This record gives sequence, structure tokens and C-alpha cells, in this order.
Amino acid sequence: MNQASEPFLHVEPEDIERTSLSIIRAELKEAGIRLDPENESVIVRAIHTTADFDYAKTLVFSEGAVAKAREALRSGAHIVTDTNMALAGVNRRVLASFGGEAHCFMADPDVAAEAKARGVTRATVSMERGTALGVPVIFAVGNAPTALISLCEAIQKGFRPELVIGVPVGFVNVVPAKEQILRTDVPYIVNRGRKGGSTVAAAICNALLYGDR
Amino acid sequence: MNQASEPFLHVEPEDIERTSLSIIRAELKEAGIRLDPENESVIVRAIHTTADFDYAKTLVFSEGAVAKAREALRSGAHIVTDTNMALAGVNRRVLASFGGEAHCFMADPDVAAEAKARGVTRATVSMERGTALGVPVIFAVGNAPTALISLCEAIQKGFRPELVIGVPVGFVNVVPAKEQILRTDVPYIVNRGRKGGSTVAAAICNALLYGDR
Repeated sequence: MNQASEPFLHVEPEDIERTSLSIIRAELKEAGIRLDPENESVIVRAIHTTADFDYAKTLVFSEGAVAKAREALRSGAHIVTDTNMALAGVNRRVLASFGGEAHCFMADPDVAAEAKARGVTRATVSMERGTALGVPVIFAVGNAPTALISLCEAIQKGFRPELVIGVPVGFVNVVPAKEQILRTDVPYIVNRGRKGGSTVAAAICNALLYGDR
Repeated sequence: MNQASEPFLHVEPEDIERTSLSIIRAELKEAGIRLDPENESVIVRAIHTTADFDYAKTLVFSEGAVAKAREALRSGAHIVTDTNMALAGVNRRVLASFGGEAHCFMADPDVAAEAKARGVTRATVSMERGTALGVPVIFAVGNAPTALISLCEAIQKGFRPELVIGVPVGFVNVVPAKEQILRTDVPYIVNRGRKGGSTVAAAICNALLYGDR
């Protein structure tokens, strides 16, 4: 789908995103890929942020996950990420307009100290901070499989997140950590396999925040 | 290369990155892909942040780009990114240890105002701010093709960046903007095609900062 000799198109700054999303939808159609209409806006934004059409095949959704997450966000749910990159990518202006806040505890000095003392990752401790916020939370995990494992442990103890976005990227324990989330009974959006990342986590949050625009 | 039934490995937190990089190198070798040793550390980190082995084929480097960029960074060069996500991903502690700073002008209110008044993107204006810093600069573009076009215009007028990392992702003008950088005479690391992103831009900066570790 890449042409090295592609010419420049004249597109106004405010139209670049809309044009990109139209191109993605057109190419999915050309390729004969039909997406579940409920999940389409999320999948298209994951492709938009990676230019990787694999996401059309590997993103999996628990029943009603998108509708439930949008309802939670509109009711003021917070978002907790496992990287400051993902935090930087979440549209906090829109989130705040619903009453929500976004958090990342990874760079907190007390998180680093506790992780070191316990011999666990900062991501593990960061998720525990998120589960202790005492408000409805959507977790967006784009980096650390240990964040997902930490959430699974909390879920086993009865914690109920509004949604787990499980899209860590990587080579060590990423695949089994994602599979573990799929076996829980909480709402999830998971990218099966090794791919994912902070940009994908943020794009999914934004797709949920934006609705079907 | 994905196994849904992959078991959990016991890996200490401090060993996860090293283990991941070893897995990537082993799989490249298995696939018969030999990388130029000078560029290997950059390519492996791009794969590490995406789990996408396409980067082994699509990342292209001007002659000596990695060595020149490492020398520039060790001499205190600054880094300018086109997203706050990429900025969040750059290891600013290591950068500061060499005397450098990282900048992203995208969220500056005066950048937004100027972009609106001129009918250009904020990325265009942000890169102009970078070229006006008056210090040696490495530009890391993970999002906006207009940032690359802006840099090409500055280069045509005689501006000389230490390096252009041209890895915007997307569907509108991304491919021709990358090809335009390849035709300049400045040091570059470019990912041909549509793929790239803020995480890739940050990973390349960090690979340059870390040396061959």
C-alpha cells in the first residue's frame, strides 16, 4: 500500500485527520475487511496511529466494551496509563470536559522506591495506585505486561475497572499477559500478539473520548 | 512469531529490556536478516518499541548518520520533537548528562496562534522554532509530514541540522515528505513508507543516546 513516488496532496491542516481516516476506511473496504460497526472507530484510530492494518485483525473487544467505556467516560471516569508517553497522547481537554482526569504514576519517586524495595516493576506499583484512586477508572496499558498482571491480581481480589485497554508491546510476557486479561470478566480492549504501544493506548482512549466522529 | 499459548517467563524487572533486545537479535538472525552493525542498535530499538520487524527493511540511514549523531549528542546537541509524546519518551536524564535539552513547541499558545494566522500546521511553526534555537539540533519527527517539509525548506535556505529523524506515521503526504528528506544532503534516519510514530522517534533518539549498549 506504499508508493515511493506518491505525489503531495493539497490538504488543509484541519482536514488532514479526516482525510487520513477516510483513506483507512477506503483501504479496509478495498481489502474486503468488514469491521463490527461498534468497534470500527477504535480500530480505525489504532491503524491511524501506526499505519499498521494488522490491528484490524488482532484487536479484540469484550461484549459492549466500547459503549460501556464511552458511558463511563461521559460519567467522569478517570484514565490511568502505564507510560507518560500515553498520558501525553490522551486528549485531556475532552476528558476534563466530562469531569475525568488522566494519571500516570510511573515517574513518581515513591513508586520507584516501592518497586525497588519489593523487587517488582514500577508498572506493577503504578497500577496498584490506580486501583486505589477510589473512582471509576479506565486503565490504558501500552507498555508493561506487568501492569496487566497487576490488574489481573486486583481483579481476582474483586476490583472492577471500567475497562482495561491491554495493548502493551513487546517480547517478554506480553502475549500471556494479554491472554490472561481475556480470561477475566471485566470489559476489555486487547491487541492480541506482541504489537501495541503507548501511541496505540492513547489512540484507543481518544477514540473512546471522541465518540463516532 | 506470536504464540497465543506462550508461557510466562521469570525475568527480573532490570533484565526485561536486555532479554527483549536479545530475542529481537535472535529472531533477526533466524530470519536471515543481517543489519549493518553501525545501524543495528537503532533498528533493534525501533523493533523493540513496535514489535514490528518491517523496520529492519524500511529504516534507511545516510552515510555515517549514527556516528555523527552520537558525536553531536555527546557535544551537547539539543533534540526537537514534533509531539509531546515523543518528548515524553526521550531519555532526558541521559541527554542532560551530555549538556543537551529536549524541546517540543507544539503546545505553545503562540505556535498555535501563528499557525492559524498563516494557515499552516503547528508542526510547521514548531520546526521553525527549532531551527531558530541557535544551537546544534537533532530533529525527531514522528507525527507530522509538514514538519519534514518545513525542515526541507529551512535546509534549502542553508540551515544544517545535526540529524533529521524522519519517521512520521500516516496516510496524507507522509511518503513524499520522507522521500524529500532523502534527497537533501543532511544526515538522516528515515523510515520509508507510511509507518513510524512518536514511540519510534523517541526510541531512535534513545538508541543514539545510549550508544551500542
